[in-house]
Amino acid sequence: MEPSRRVMRAAIVDWGPKKISVGSELRLQASSSATVILNIEAARTEQQIVFNETLQVSPETPIESYELPRSGIRYSRLRVPPGEIIVRYSAQVSTSPVVVDPESVYGVGVADLPFPVLPYTFPSRYCQSDRLGRFAQAEFSKYPPGHGRVTAICNWIHDHVEYVVGSSDAHTSVHETLVTRAGVCRDFAHLGIALCRALGIPARFVSCYAAELHPPDFHAVVEAYLGGRWFLFDATRQAALHGLVRIGLGRDAADASITTMFGQVQSLKPKVQAHSESTESWHALDTQAVSLSAV
Amino acid sequence: MEPSRRVMRAAIVDWGPKKISVGSELRLQASSSATVILNIEAARTEQQIVFNETLQVSPETPIESYELPRSGIRYSRLRVPPGEIIVRYSAQVSTSPVVVDPESVYGVGVADLPFPVLPYTFPSRYCQSDRLGRFAQAEFSKYPPGHGRVTAICNWIHDHVEYVVGSSDAHTSVHETLVTRAGVCRDFAHLGIALCRALGIPARFVSCYAAELHPPDFHAVVEAYLGGRWFLFDATRQAALHGLVRIGLGRDAADASITTMFGQVQSLKPKVQAHSESTESWHALDTQAVSLSAV
Amino acid sequence: MEPSRRVMRAAIVDWGPKKISVGSELRLQASSSATVILNIEAARTEQQIVFNETLQVSPETPIESYELPRSGIRYSRLRVPPGEIIVRYSAQVSTSPVVVDPESVYGVGVADLPFPVLPYTFPSRYCQSDRLGRFAQAEFSKYPPGHGRVTAICNWIHDHVEYVVGSSDAHTSVHETLVTRAGVCRDFAHLGIALCRALGIPARFVSCYAAELHPPDFHAVVEAYLGGRWFLFDATRQAALHGLVRIGLGRDAADASITTMFGQVQSLKPKVQAHSESTESWHALDTQAVSLSAV
Amino acid sequence: MEPSRRVMRAAIVDWGPKKISVGSELRLQASSSATVILNIEAARTEQQIVFNETLQVSPETPIESYELPRSGIRYSRLRVPPGEIIVRYSAQVSTSPVVVDPESVYGVGVADLPFPVLPYTFPSRYCQSDRLGRFAQAEFSKYPPGHGRVTAICNWIHDHVEYVVGSSDAHTSVHETLVTRAGVCRDFAHLGIALCRALGIPARFVSCYAAELHPPDFHAVVEAYLGGRWFLFDATRQAALHGLVRIGLGRDAADASITTMFGQVQSLKPKVQAHSESTESWHALDTQAVSLSAV
Repeated sequence: MEPSRRVMRAAIVDWGPKKISVGSELRLQASSSATVILNIEAARTEQQIVFNETLQVSPETPIESYELPRSGIRYSRLRVPPGEIIVRYSAQVSTSPVVVDPESVYGVGVADLPFPVLPYTFPSRYCQSDRLGRFAQAEFSKYPPGHGRVTAICNWIHDHVEYVVGSSDAHTSVHETLVTRAGVCRDFAHLGIALCRALGIPARFVSCYAAELHPPDFHAVVEAYLGGRWFLFDATRQAALHGLVRIGLGRDAADASITTMFGQVQSLKPKVQAHSESTESWHALDTQAVSLSAV
Repeated sequence: MEPSRRVMRAAIVDWGPKKISVGSELRLQASSSATVILNIEAARTEQQIVFNETLQVSPETPIESYELPRSGIRYSRLRVPPGEIIVRYSAQVSTSPVVVDPESVYGVGVADLPFPVLPYTFPSRYCQSDRLGRFAQAEFSKYPPGHGRVTAICNWIHDHVEYVVGSSDAHTSVHETLVTRAGVCRDFAHLGIALCRALGIPARFVSCYAAELHPPDFHAVVEAYLGGRWFLFDATRQAALHGLVRIGLGRDAADASITTMFGQVQSLKPKVQAHSESTESWHALDTQAVSLSAV
Repeated sequence: MEPSRRVMRAAIVDWGPKKISVGSELRLQASSSATVILNIEAARTEQQIVFNETLQVSPETPIESYELPRSGIRYSRLRVPPGEIIVRYSAQVSTSPVVVDPESVYGVGVADLPFPVLPYTFPSRYCQSDRLGRFAQAEFSKYPPGHGRVTAICNWIHDHVEYVVGSSDAHTSVHETLVTRAGVCRDFAHLGIALCRALGIPARFVSCYAAELHPPDFHAVVEAYLGGRWFLFDATRQAALHGLVRIGLGRDAADASITTMFGQVQSLKPKVQAHSESTESWHALDTQAVSLSAV
Repeated sequence: MEPSRRVMRAAIVDWGPKKISVGSELRLQASSSATVILNIEAARTEQQIVFNETLQVSPETPIESYELPRSGIRYSRLRVPPGEIIVRYSAQVSTSPVVVDPESVYGVGVADLPFPVLPYTFPSRYCQSDRLGRFAQAEFSKYPPGHGRVTAICNWIHDHVEYVVGSSDAHTSVHETLVTRAGVCRDFAHLGIALCRALGIPARFVSCYAAELHPPDFHAVVEAYLGGRWFLFDATRQAALHGLVRIGLGRDAADASITTMFGQVQSLKPKVQAHSESTESWHALDTQAVSLSAV
């Protein structure tokens, strides 16, 4: 059985490539020499072509770059001196999301998952799926496996967790979110990921630029492995899935921090922008299944 | 306004006093000298008359007794030598539960609560109600304050938490129960108490003998302060409320342990019994509001 | 054996009564009608005489008062309308701390503790002593029972936990403090209490005014039951023990909140003052054992 | 700077390859059809040659195998029918540990770490290093970076955590271990890993066979990235580092479960053996730095 072939047979609804202008500005304040790893550049993949890209650091600082071989995820390492550092990034990105009928996107049983995908069924720092089996079974096993089951998970989160700026921090995991019923995009994504994994559905964390997000900010969504591809889900319902530009990828936010800082550094609230040149309605495709990545 | 008067006006449905025979046998194994505090005797209150009572410890050990002035809760302290100690308790108890129409049992706003009752709105070891406000509001504020709102809480617990022997231990608090969705009577009671408190309803923990409980064991239920009295609730739905005999009382299980042990002592699984002489159907009164205590 | 008699035989070092002027100003902002319970007044006990006392609320609001029978702890209940409420309290307090040689303050075994004191060996919301037995035994059982053992606990906390304003919040319990190694006075007190209880030493939480505290604020300390009395301990080492004026008392901060708010109310940072008329050195008595309460 | 070169200059103390016979027997009981992923085979690397290998499943069941490209870690997937399944594995393994003077093994600053190693400084499911920075700095920054600092971490764990069979379970993370001060090899490894990461030292989890371990069982140790290689550490001090045979590898136990089960399957306690043909004293090398892996 070759799962991805079945998806291809699904009715692909192609609106063609999206052109999205993205940019961000970070302001870091180091009280002593420090090392900072940035993950703010758009990933380079077959479905996401990046051009007209600039990354500036002022005062000028040597940048060491690294790109992960398969995923095209990109990191920059800076050795920052004491003082204030401003990082400015901008790029044009052309994405080619695969958009299909969600009814055609079936679930893949654990027995048939490709081995490299299996670690995305394991629990992680913020997604302790190992404790959620009973809850996930009770609430979601009634939905048939596939895109609809993950949508049911996201609907539950949307209906039971309140989006409250400042209600969580860098240490908040799904246990607290389930108890306090509040969070931001990162917490919504973590809970979605954890509930998927508790049902044996591989799921991972995607940090991204999101076209026309209000207020503009970095965003975080769920990617679940279904029908041989990774499909995007946003339990916050704040972003249009086909307007996303992938930045980081991992088991959870521990793997996809915008900035990882070693030393006495503070990051002020970043400025972010992401605009589309297209005039189409952003939310027209919300009932479709959207994928930006096969691997 | 004098709240308790209003309850008195409610249609009291009086089946008359219940006669219940209770008993328990504890087996303690001390590997060195230790101090054990027992809370296994039936409380002595106006509504709960205890007679024909025996408490035996073998080998014979001096027992120091203490009875709390208002609640009639009773403790026994033993200084146990190394070796095995067997404690046997038995009593006849005549209880006079107040049974009324739940529709007549209204909620008391925090502004009107008697001061001595206020601490039962505070969070405690196993009932961290301070984190549950958003959840409790979202799920239960739609029910009018009063007996029905607490019943709605217990119904939610019954429907969303599975009764699984061995799924929790002496350290389990409501946070874990909300995440794992499993527990035993003590966890069901803790979650009921925490959700009440998160809504400003005073609630406390009652350990008890429960007539005709299967399998026989010590039991734990919620007591919520409504309409000027404390009303009993059992989210497990395993016990008939008018067949309960109160043993311990407190903020949560930390205050009402059957055995509190200081030193190297192990307690084997106790044997418990509680039978009623009455032939009436135990569950006939389940739709009524039942109270064993005004204070 | 009558424990308190032995303390009396200890060399009491009496500096005579302290006269301390205390005051606080709270600013509450209610977005709708709400109920607020204040615990800001100095307790009235034999050892703590309160005079020249004023409690003003503006705009004028009816105040309902309650004083606990034995401990003299006092609560005020306000029904606040929407808007800003300012509460101002001031008083002169004459305290008569019992100051004795710490060497004479022995520990009381669990087998000999008065029954009413036993609940202070139980775990509570922020002091989950039930998990700390192994740690407490390993670190502190080497010190002989008594005042010195509790001092050893406070020394450990002082040496291993950093006082960091803003490092904790109203939900922080000793588990987090042990992991993050940071906290404020409330967290230091909670950890001291939990470690005492893990060793069978009754311990409770005291909120207080503290003469000459810098910066001025409400303070929180540990009270441990030793030699038949309750003795004060401050693991932060920021306050002079004989300059404390007791406000609240309980198992932990859940019982002794300065303000308990039901409804949409915010409390801004309070202004607090506490000055002594005495000219003696505040820290001269730091090596003594200080008690403000027998019961 | 090319870090690995410096290690090579260190005095390599070569005892030559070790020959170790390993074996294990798992007994799985499935109450319905289930999928099981095994990670029990010795990894195949340049430093670990595996021969005379057998893997039997009875009743006979198709096995799907997968080997990770760089690390040689191996997984087997079984689709098990209801009933009992017995898995038996045995192999001869020839390992070539690199053994060097610990003084020569320096630490690598975050600014100089290879990018692929950086994720091992991130927090993970059981190793929430993000909360441990203050503790790790306070206790271990006084040791110079390098092998000695990680040894100091392991010494602290050995001295402050008690090895207690049954004190933890599959959900236990370092927060609980720090509070309860008890655990088994997996918990010791998790705490070692978390404390390394809190100091910016990449660290990962290794499951293994351990020659002459008593009682025989699967074992778990820490691997920390120092001086351009991964070095082994065992905070339990139960195994000789040069007698280890690597099985699994990952961020923590979530990545290196012996058995990962999807469905209603129970695993009974496995039987494990690992013997060396060598007659040398197993603990002779304990003061050396031992590495089984460059990557």
